[in-house]
Amino acid sequence: MSTDRHVTRRSDLIQSIRRTGISAMLITNPKNVSYLTGFTGDDSYLLIGPDQLQLFSDSRFQTQLQDECPDIPAEIRTARLLMPDFLAQLLPKFSLKVLGIESTSLVVSVRDLLVEKLKPVEVVSQPGLVEELRTIKDEGEIAEIRLAVRQAERGFELMKSMLLLNMTERQAAHDLEHGMRRFGALKAAFEPIIAVGDRAALPHYRPGLRRFDESGFALVDWGAVSSRGYHSDLTRMLVTSKLPPKLHHVYGVVLKAQQAGIAAIRPGARCQDVDAAARTVIEQAGYGQYFGHGLGHGIGLDIHELPRFSPISTEVLKPGMIITVEPGIYLPGVGGVRIEDDILVTNDGYEVLSSVPRDAPTSAG
Amino acid sequence: MSTDRHVTRRSDLIQSIRRTGISAMLITNPKNVSYLTGFTGDDSYLLIGPDQLQLFSDSRFQTQLQDECPDIPAEIRTARLLMPDFLAQLLPKFSLKVLGIESTSLVVSVRDLLVEKLKPVEVVSQPGLVEELRTIKDEGEIAEIRLAVRQAERGFELMKSMLLLNMTERQAAHDLEHGMRRFGALKAAFEPIIAVGDRAALPHYRPGLRRFDESGFALVDWGAVSSRGYHSDLTRMLVTSKLPPKLHHVYGVVLKAQQAGIAAIRPGARCQDVDAAARTVIEQAGYGQYFGHGLGHGIGLDIHELPRFSPISTEVLKPGMIITVEPGIYLPGVGGVRIEDDILVTNDGYEVLSSVPRDAPTSAG
Repeated sequence: MSTDRHVTRRSDLIQSIRRTGISAMLITNPKNVSYLTGFTGDDSYLLIGPDQLQLFSDSRFQTQLQDECPDIPAEIRTARLLMPDFLAQLLPKFSLKVLGIESTSLVVSVRDLLVEKLKPVEVVSQPGLVEELRTIKDEGEIAEIRLAVRQAERGFELMKSMLLLNMTERQAAHDLEHGMRRFGALKAAFEPIIAVGDRAALPHYRPGLRRFDESGFALVDWGAVSSRGYHSDLTRMLVTSKLPPKLHHVYGVVLKAQQAGIAAIRPGARCQDVDAAARTVIEQAGYGQYFGHGLGHGIGLDIHELPRFSPISTEVLKPGMIITVEPGIYLPGVGGVRIEDDILVTNDGYEVLSSVPRDAPTSAG
Repeated sequence: MSTDRHVTRRSDLIQSIRRTGISAMLITNPKNVSYLTGFTGDDSYLLIGPDQLQLFSDSRFQTQLQDECPDIPAEIRTARLLMPDFLAQLLPKFSLKVLGIESTSLVVSVRDLLVEKLKPVEVVSQPGLVEELRTIKDEGEIAEIRLAVRQAERGFELMKSMLLLNMTERQAAHDLEHGMRRFGALKAAFEPIIAVGDRAALPHYRPGLRRFDESGFALVDWGAVSSRGYHSDLTRMLVTSKLPPKLHHVYGVVLKAQQAGIAAIRPGARCQDVDAAARTVIEQAGYGQYFGHGLGHGIGLDIHELPRFSPISTEVLKPGMIITVEPGIYLPGVGGVRIEDDILVTNDGYEVLSSVPRDAPTSAG
């Protein structure tokens, strides 16, 4: 059922559209369609503007559209007509001059077809309008992300409680996902990264056949998707025996960097300054070359959203943003340490939404 | 480790590239990069042409690239440089005139950046070269899809054996995915569709809180991903009590349509004729308007690949293609029936890779 919050979002988007000078937007990113309408299917486009509101879908979703957003008119195509041709038939009645497209998610081939088929309507790239709205979470969204954080945390506790040292990374990853679902998650936010020993030096490792008892520690990066589609994203070191002395030292550096990054979060802070606050700690400890990724990213309906914490990000923090802070140091052949939490920007500072303990684990040294 | 089959695929692609007149392709679709190199990470591009072979990645993947495709040179960017700028720095040494891009997967905004930054290199859309190669599965790929089918089937058997009638669709979906993983699947090929009662009329329903004992039947559409990333895709009706008489009749029509579609599969057959063979059965039974989607699609590294069985598809079948056949009839408010199997095109006909029983279930009538 489409609700007041969807009406508010559409109204905000129409304000943005008015500022651009285009006639209307064709929303093609399924997450954005869902954000604006409540419809949870995919392959459906939303035309929205000051005088336009129309969904374009196909017969697979006809009943679902009636259930989820009965207040929005929907045109339904059959399997005999591709979407660009369908739009070409129906768009003339909306008297458009310039149609904006979501160029950061629409693929080139569909854009080219739209340009050709929709003539004389001018098709222009108008990226980021909905993504910009999505950076600020409303109360319902904040509650959903809190839920997704809690589902991730409880899944992690359950996985740890079930862990056998002769299990593989992949078995543990499956238990972790099943655990999060047991506590109400729709699914894992992404394939959990569980990287034993020196595999932890690979920031985007996929869990494999390495067993926990082949080393004394693992890096675990995981998150949950709440039933309404919101993501959490956490990373912890799971120490089953002991960290090697080198990584024990690195752990302290990463934790200090994370605390410095989090402490820099407040409305008005520049995202690149937050990145720098953490990065400087790592650089001054001599590990700058081993921290090759950005400090963090927004989370919401996607696992990676705006804003970004990176040396080149240009955004400024605002209340209602929710962003990860996840510095890491990766030593090839030895292992890596990353610590990640999800942070809400409040009216006067920040709130750490996640609460898994992150004290320095015992060293083998 | 990059193997002979990756070398063969790159060699086949270079033949395709020569036929187009472009200097080289920039492969940006992660599945295509993986298909050509063996690298299983993402966010990495492959430049490939008669005189070019170069990966562009970032420091997250440095070690993984050395492990997975040590024979392919890789340039590694830092977080301070975006990919289009990184390419702009490095591409001049490859003396390109015309660079092809994968326009069916590359987003408009990245294309626009490449066009701007890579001048004077001309950037042109060259869709489908790798996808075309991927339609024909080699022996290793066929074995992987057989495995994914078997993992899906065993997961389904396990889920059925654990089913309680007061479970929700979502709980059963979680058990199904966990079951497939237990038999070696990497994950589910997509969020399983488990739709109880009249929800089965929604072809792309997402499992919710409906309980099995609220009706006598459910539609289950599911698949597995093998550890090397290949997909299976199956649909069965799960009858926990009895089908309503109307759907019992419909079941017979859908099964007959599926058998007609499968029987039409052979090398040289046109995909639209296979679609028509099944669709005619449904139309002649008077249900044409309730079958709104195409008859099937290729499976492989993606869950939806070429070719497609639809009234407007233009492809012709060749040995080595693996395609679903999945007619359905959806009666709003009553329920729906879909039956889906995965079919290999052989040298002289077809082989049904899946073997879950699909006899007509008992009717309540």
